[in-house]
Amino acid sequence: MQVKMAKNYGFCFGVKRAIEIAQKNKDSLTLGSLIHNPKEIKRLEQDYNVRVQEDVNTIEPHKKVIIRTHGIPKNDLSKLKDKGAQIIDATCPYVIKPQQIVEKMSAKGYQIVIFGDANHPEVKGVISYSSTPPLVVNSLEELQTQKLGKKIALVSQTTKQTPKLLEIASFLIARCAEVRIFNTICNATFDNQEAVRELSQEVDIMVIVGGKTSSNTKQLFHIAKEFCSDSYLVEDFNDLNPEWFSGKKLCGISAGASTPDWIIEKVRVQISQI
Amino acid sequence: MQVKMAKNYGFCFGVKRAIEIAQKNKDSLTLGSLIHNPKEIKRLEQDYNVRVQEDVNTIEPHKKVIIRTHGIPKNDLSKLKDKGAQIIDATCPYVIKPQQIVEKMSAKGYQIVIFGDANHPEVKGVISYSSTPPLVVNSLEELQTQKLGKKIALVSQTTKQTPKLLEIASFLIARCAEVRIFNTICNATFDNQEAVRELSQEVDIMVIVGGKTSSNTKQLFHIAKEFCSDSYLVEDFNDLNPEWFSGKKLCGISAGASTPDWIIEKVRVQISQI
Repeated sequence: MQVKMAKNYGFCFGVKRAIEIAQKNKDSLTLGSLIHNPKEIKRLEQDYNVRVQEDVNTIEPHKKVIIRTHGIPKNDLSKLKDKGAQIIDATCPYVIKPQQIVEKMSAKGYQIVIFGDANHPEVKGVISYSSTPPLVVNSLEELQTQKLGKKIALVSQTTKQTPKLLEIASFLIARCAEVRIFNTICNATFDNQEAVRELSQEVDIMVIVGGKTSSNTKQLFHIAKEFCSDSYLVEDFNDLNPEWFSGKKLCGISAGASTPDWIIEKVRVQISQI
Repeated sequence: MQVKMAKNYGFCFGVKRAIEIAQKNKDSLTLGSLIHNPKEIKRLEQDYNVRVQEDVNTIEPHKKVIIRTHGIPKNDLSKLKDKGAQIIDATCPYVIKPQQIVEKMSAKGYQIVIFGDANHPEVKGVISYSSTPPLVVNSLEELQTQKLGKKIALVSQTTKQTPKLLEIASFLIARCAEVRIFNTICNATFDNQEAVRELSQEVDIMVIVGGKTSSNTKQLFHIAKEFCSDSYLVEDFNDLNPEWFSGKKLCGISAGASTPDWIIEKVRVQISQI
């Protein structure tokens, strides 16, 4: 069976990059989970002795510490430096951006508005870079009760949706003399969907790899089904049924954002041998 | 009859200011019409010998020249300076703002987007302050076919409506890494409407002064009528009918944005004498 992978699938750029960094740095610590994927965290611990430590205060001096994809608060970074830690930064470049913007804009006197979840590690990190207390809102409603300055800088948590950011931006523009809007949303999820839409139109059969309860995986499956009636959702290679492929020539493959590459790879090899 | 004026009515701040400047500067020229109101321009010419000259090239050296409310292109200003003109600036401060923003932002490398009518004197002036060719769009549709940079600065013609500005801003935010939005819309028209809405709820009778074909005057009349059934639209004091006022105690007055103060004043005096 001939196989074609979607243009974008599975883990996003920042997660793949962090895993590569972790694999190159055996016997290191990560401050908090490197990525939001327990299976992969377990594999990194078993195969590379990369262990998670939750509290910066309990990390011993002069350790090799990997900064997680979501970044960490500035204060924690200082503590690591004070401990003489060997710091390896796996913060996603798309997360570093809002950190830098918030640092620069708050120094220039702009009131900072962060569209995001104040309890999410990424947002906690971004908040810490503001020299003045930022407004952190998870919805337009939360913003409506706040007192606003004349000059605003707006950034977004990377995983938010653009239409919601636009609602917040519109509210600010109508009320403030200057609004500087930095679109720090990352399109990774959207790109995976777009790639399935394309690929499923040129293949005989589509296989989506991912958890059957994962909402983004199911979304990919529904998009595939729309364009290719012979579409299947599998958790791993054990779910494959050779009968699906009889009379087919080209199989397209994609995977949910939380599916590790090694699971996808096993599915790809298995299908190509049918 | 007791009379109460609306909190805001008639000419906007910038127009009133320009008329005062013209009245203080008898025997001067204006480059293009000082304001968009032929009746008032005629009065200034008759009573103050303030005359309109349309072409900067025909203005003789060392003249006293008033800059119109809409501003003029930078190049015309240079020509006036070269002629040794005594320049009196009646540019509305709300128009100077987008001129300054466009000058600063284009120098900083932002791609300039102006929401406005490229043929309007105000917009022609603003365009002239950009060191790079700006995109001038009168609608979202006009923007959709344009090539956009990563860093955008957006300003608006002062008389545009906020919802349309928001449409354009949203389009840019979804596509560009940074959008600096300067809300340079002036709320004068909206303020006049809001003031009529308030006043018409506390009076027995409302009189709106303005042209019967003027769309903003008719809008004020409809708002008044909504809250005060005894509302009337008059072009000047000749239209007043004393019968309207029988049994009434308090009369509210407002006027359209193109109604000169002296016409309003005559109406006010006439009503207070009923």
